[in-house]
Amino acid sequence: MVDKRDAQLAAFIEPLRVPPGKKIVLSRDFDPRYKADLLSKKDGVELLAKGVQLLAEYQERLAAQDTYGLLVCLQALDAAGKDGAIRHVMSGVNPQGVSVHSFKAPSTEELDHDYLWRAARNLPARGDIAIFNRSHYEEVLVVRVHPQILESQRLPKSARGKDVWKRRYREINDWERYLTDNGFVVVKIFLNLSKEEQRKRFLARVDEADKNWKFSASDARERKYWDDYQVAYSEMLSHTSTANAPWYVVPADTKWFARICVMAILAHTLIGIDPQFPVLPDAAKAELANVRVELEAEGS
Amino acid sequence: MVDKRDAQLAAFIEPLRVPPGKKIVLSRDFDPRYKADLLSKKDGVELLAKGVQLLAEYQERLAAQDTYGLLVCLQALDAAGKDGAIRHVMSGVNPQGVSVHSFKAPSTEELDHDYLWRAARNLPARGDIAIFNRSHYEEVLVVRVHPQILESQRLPKSARGKDVWKRRYREINDWERYLTDNGFVVVKIFLNLSKEEQRKRFLARVDEADKNWKFSASDARERKYWDDYQVAYSEMLSHTSTANAPWYVVPADTKWFARICVMAILAHTLIGIDPQFPVLPDAAKAELANVRVELEAEGS
Repeated sequence: MVDKRDAQLAAFIEPLRVPPGKKIVLSRDFDPRYKADLLSKKDGVELLAKGVQLLAEYQERLAAQDTYGLLVCLQALDAAGKDGAIRHVMSGVNPQGVSVHSFKAPSTEELDHDYLWRAARNLPARGDIAIFNRSHYEEVLVVRVHPQILESQRLPKSARGKDVWKRRYREINDWERYLTDNGFVVVKIFLNLSKEEQRKRFLARVDEADKNWKFSASDARERKYWDDYQVAYSEMLSHTSTANAPWYVVPADTKWFARICVMAILAHTLIGIDPQFPVLPDAAKAELANVRVELEAEGS
Repeated sequence: MVDKRDAQLAAFIEPLRVPPGKKIVLSRDFDPRYKADLLSKKDGVELLAKGVQLLAEYQERLAAQDTYGLLVCLQALDAAGKDGAIRHVMSGVNPQGVSVHSFKAPSTEELDHDYLWRAARNLPARGDIAIFNRSHYEEVLVVRVHPQILESQRLPKSARGKDVWKRRYREINDWERYLTDNGFVVVKIFLNLSKEEQRKRFLARVDEADKNWKFSASDARERKYWDDYQVAYSEMLSHTSTANAPWYVVPADTKWFARICVMAILAHTLIGIDPQFPVLPDAAKAELANVRVELEAEGS
């Protein structure tokens, strides 16, 4: 019994999904400015409010059923709007059932372990939603663009060969398959920003007092590697979008539209899990009836 | 440049190794009373002392190189001598580089996660040795013998089908392969006790004041499932002994002999890693020479 609202959601996000096995090229296959012609900003804001309601409702069911967990990986270049998307899409959801883990430069302790260790430690529990703000995919993105980071990971030589990225894609796919098969649904979202829009947002961060705490010179340095990142993202999307753990490429140049996309992807994924409130067995219902009698007697 | 001592060790443990892909039956293929005819207990004690020295030496190198980690999984039925083996074999090794994690009945928090979660959290860091006293293999042993435990894991229905054990073997093999490929060497040891010897040791635990804290009625109850455990172990050994993460079946009826076997397996594995003390680059050596000059000048 799938939620009727899903038909619309599924159609809406279909153009964003990376088909498993398809070799994609970001600049050719996904337009950062796309915004599904029919939608105006006003329509969008209303739609988002409805979607947030739906997410809240499904999160409650997910927690009550306590069988599945949901892992959301959110990747993007700087200023693409990850933090804003999390804030706007998840703010209506009970924070008791949601955790957000930000992946920063790895700590010494984290570097001392296998590269999935810190991701594994922060997985959701059953019934919970975990959002990775950046994720284990940094290991095939920033590490690929700056191979000297690979050197700092103190890997044995055999783990630093030319095949390292393909091997990591396989290892990540294996891991996500294991998670899915054991009740942890994985969904992955890339906020796809254009280079020109990043330039504008960087300028705004430099100029506006309430934004420039978010900007550092290192962000501008990283921008010089734009083309390398496009290649790394294209390869990653081509190799790690699977039937069980798909990637969605969300056009990020229009903030309100990007947020609707993120909401729609999460809503569709939760509806797919179809979590149900537990139904009490008859014996437990009978017990509750007894409790009612006792409580009522107390009042008389 | 492999350690010359390894030839003897490798030959000694060869009969204990489970060949990858071979379908084995414990009762047919491994004798719990085997003790390599030539060895007397006196010889054994001397050999163990030498071996512990070798382990200490290699652990120091492993820590200094800080590139590989070693994970040792120790499995056995009750009273097979896991605790004694850890104590006798590892007592000469610097505890700063060794952690022992005991897998008891999973906590509520652990049950709320995927079944490899608690194993992943307790993996060794690079340079360290981690010993799992019982391990993630409990998930295809005690859980298989008592399928009601599987029910308590709140898995989705699809993860509780008939194929669950084969799927778990594959998932565990994938995970251990990932670990190995990233510098974490995995070795697995099963202490193989006979039913008659377990009976004797249980009787001793019941009778002797300094042993009976180690005994509970549930141990005796578990003994009723002896044949089921033999099947579960045979299947597990047949499916999860791989070239990169082999199983060794250690005859456990003779305690001093079992400990030598455990020592020999660990020694052979560490020698295989061949960890080297880091060699300082010339610039760093020159710097040290300067430091020497300064320190000496202070004294004059």
